[in-house]
Amino acid sequence: MQGLIENIFSPAFLMSQNAQQDAAVLSVGQQSLAFTSDSYVVDPLFFPGGDIGSLSVYGTVNDLAMMGALPLYLSASFILEEGLDIGILQKVVFSMQEAAQLAGVQIVTGDTKVVERGRGHGIFINTAGIGLLKEGQNITPQGIRADDAILLNGDLGRHGISIMCAREKLDFEPEIKSDLAPLVAIVQALLQEGIEIHAMRDLTRGGLSSALNEIAQAARLEIALEESNIVISPQVRGVCELLGLDPLYVANEGRFIAFVPAAQVEKSLSIMKSFADLGEHASCIGFVNLSRDALVTIKNSFSQVRILSLLSGQQLPRIC
Amino acid sequence: MQGLIENIFSPAFLMSQNAQQDAAVLSVGQQSLAFTSDSYVVDPLFFPGGDIGSLSVYGTVNDLAMMGALPLYLSASFILEEGLDIGILQKVVFSMQEAAQLAGVQIVTGDTKVVERGRGHGIFINTAGIGLLKEGQNITPQGIRADDAILLNGDLGRHGISIMCAREKLDFEPEIKSDLAPLVAIVQALLQEGIEIHAMRDLTRGGLSSALNEIAQAARLEIALEESNIVISPQVRGVCELLGLDPLYVANEGRFIAFVPAAQVEKSLSIMKSFADLGEHASCIGFVNLSRDALVTIKNSFSQVRILSLLSGQQLPRIC
Repeated sequence: MQGLIENIFSPAFLMSQNAQQDAAVLSVGQQSLAFTSDSYVVDPLFFPGGDIGSLSVYGTVNDLAMMGALPLYLSASFILEEGLDIGILQKVVFSMQEAAQLAGVQIVTGDTKVVERGRGHGIFINTAGIGLLKEGQNITPQGIRADDAILLNGDLGRHGISIMCAREKLDFEPEIKSDLAPLVAIVQALLQEGIEIHAMRDLTRGGLSSALNEIAQAARLEIALEESNIVISPQVRGVCELLGLDPLYVANEGRFIAFVPAAQVEKSLSIMKSFADLGEHASCIGFVNLSRDALVTIKNSFSQVRILSLLSGQQLPRIC
Repeated sequence: MQGLIENIFSPAFLMSQNAQQDAAVLSVGQQSLAFTSDSYVVDPLFFPGGDIGSLSVYGTVNDLAMMGALPLYLSASFILEEGLDIGILQKVVFSMQEAAQLAGVQIVTGDTKVVERGRGHGIFINTAGIGLLKEGQNITPQGIRADDAILLNGDLGRHGISIMCAREKLDFEPEIKSDLAPLVAIVQALLQEGIEIHAMRDLTRGGLSSALNEIAQAARLEIALEESNIVISPQVRGVCELLGLDPLYVANEGRFIAFVPAAQVEKSLSIMKSFADLGEHASCIGFVNLSRDALVTIKNSFSQVRILSLLSGQQLPRIC
């Protein structure tokens, strides 16, 4: 995917400066906006903790939130496979409506196309989102400073593992639920309390490790993680071991990292922890070293340091 | 499709007021914007006069232009079928780049998903677009006045027929090319020359007839057409007769109707005709009668009047 973006899309479109960000920053008249679009092809359509409808709302809303933008409007476009049970569509649309309400956005425009059986897969959804940026707001990897702390809002790996279990019909007790959630409120709370967020990223495809590697490369700096501060639930860890997956590479849909000045770590964590489900396990997972080596290192509880590289193999397909 | 929109999407989303328009009108800060999104699933990917790439740019740009907006930014999201020839993707992306340049928009953000063979069909593209609206600009069916003239910028039916011929491998000489084109410049010229456009609509899915019926119903008025003023090329007419299609219901991708004061017809047509390919066959095809009957009538050259109803049967699938 990164190859596609670098070789085909970036040279053709004006995305080069946006490719490493969750949304584009635009000037429209007097206004600064964030604009993003994602297609959702998750399989199965329904999974513990969510469905393609809520995912398509929160996924796009979170991309806007990661720019520090206040998400306002979404479009919703559907590609339906012929023969789709209309009750399924209704459930998905209801879920989108509920999610939009929770995230504080309005779905204002859309489109529907129908393709023949075997040319689609139930429902694909595209949502594009527009968010409002405050004047001078500029949250990008280039804003990261030496010694910035890296905060993470909760435990990792639940979305990817819940999809995997639903798809492969693996029954674990208790059921692992996706962490899918809107990140608008928690991010806005940090900003409103005066936390100087230098950069943010949600930990979707490729998980924590991919997000950090992209940032390290975009900003040319070293990120040093403390493994013991990264929360992974025993269930997720167990399933990952069983399936040979590394939870640091597994997708999340309600987890993000924020780069903040070291002096603001305590205040930030106390704000984050006030969001029960979204922040109770918030922690400081590492720090930034300005260096010429763009890399991510991780120190385990025995003080052994290893390099966390970009995933080179096959990623779990269609998790979002 | 209209049933889907009315029964499922409109009640769930805030689209009710926008459902009968090409784009939503939004307030963002001090700015008024038009916002729209369409997914493109055209089959085949390449057809005489265009391809899914140029279609995905012009289609969305034209939706914005129909609101009187100046299109500025597009997103471009791809759903690719596993095994897709990368050369095809490159051709499509190049075509999008060229189209964006011609239409004066920037493609600023996007996304790519890959689905398994048999779960997609080559390439699906979603584009969402943002356009700038001038203060007080309000082009909607509700703006139509009694005796407004209805202008059409050219001959009908070429897009749908070119797709049909390409799909069914029908070889006609000369080849019928899609009318696919960006409508920004011609619309902006009309507005800048002071033409009071009350309403506009591009004649895509369902053609002229569907667009007029939707407008007649939205604004509760009667539209009276003169068939002899509607241009249809002999080739398109011939293929339509052969295939049992009515060209008034066939899709176009570079044709639109504008409702203007009768006093501005001549001036409008002379502006439109100055756009060689896009306006040389521009004509006044009818007038508005305010009445309680929301319907579209058409008078043929023998002065016989018939009602042009909404298409009830199957439309040609996947023409955009």
